[in-house]
Amino acid sequence: MFKGIDHIVIAVKDLDAAIKQYEGIYGVQATERGEPPGAGFTNAFFRFGGPSYVELVSPTNDSGPVGRRVASGGEGVYLVAMGVDDLQATLADLRSKGVRLIGDPGPDKPVAGQVFIHPSATGGVLTQLVQR
Amino acid sequence: MFKGIDHIVIAVKDLDAAIKQYEGIYGVQATERGEPPGAGFTNAFFRFGGPSYVELVSPTNDSGPVGRRVASGGEGVYLVAMGVDDLQATLADLRSKGVRLIGDPGPDKPVAGQVFIHPSATGGVLTQLVQR
Repeated sequence: MFKGIDHIVIAVKDLDAAIKQYEGIYGVQATERGEPPGAGFTNAFFRFGGPSYVELVSPTNDSGPVGRRVASGGEGVYLVAMGVDDLQATLADLRSKGVRLIGDPGPDKPVAGQVFIHPSATGGVLTQLVQR
Repeated sequence: MFKGIDHIVIAVKDLDAAIKQYEGIYGVQATERGEPPGAGFTNAFFRFGGPSYVELVSPTNDSGPVGRRVASGGEGVYLVAMGVDDLQATLADLRSKGVRLIGDPGPDKPVAGQVFIHPSATGGVLTQLVQR
């Protein structure tokens, strides 16, 4: 079952500049700034006390997914992450409907990383599935 | 004060097809399908029982904002709406910081319609401000 919007990820060219812009707009400080190993981007998070948050990502190279996105499509919303209450059940349902997935481990296998619905199935929106 | 993500709006070319796709993915029916007068788009909503929702919009002409977006940038996330607890105070704060706004009535005037932060201030994300 889908529970709503968990977070959005915004791709930007200059993380420092974007953090400064967003700190001014949101009136809160960015937290948990980092660089996930091998991901090809640096990131920072904005939290608001509620269930949803905003993540900024900025590519560290042109060959990763975020780098390719910024090179081809510029800055903007990179993905929308939707919260689900049971990721395995959601994946089984989406498989049965033939929805194109990215990172799906397949039936009866544990999810080892991030799982997404391909933009071709969602009107162009890379959609991550997140179980908290 | 920003409270989190209120909703996202996804621009699609074919609303019927997108509703069918998203109903299959989300496992819920679209609600409140309509056509706001003069807006240049038809829309439908997906709600999940939580505070956030997803709106689909599809242009009815090429000259409105949604039509121009789909013509130039294709389908995808059209805007992100952020919830705020006091819209007038948020607007005053953003004005004082020189953040470029769309639909801002100006100081000491009531908000008469929708208000947005211009994408040039947010890494390319048209950001609506919503007080519930």
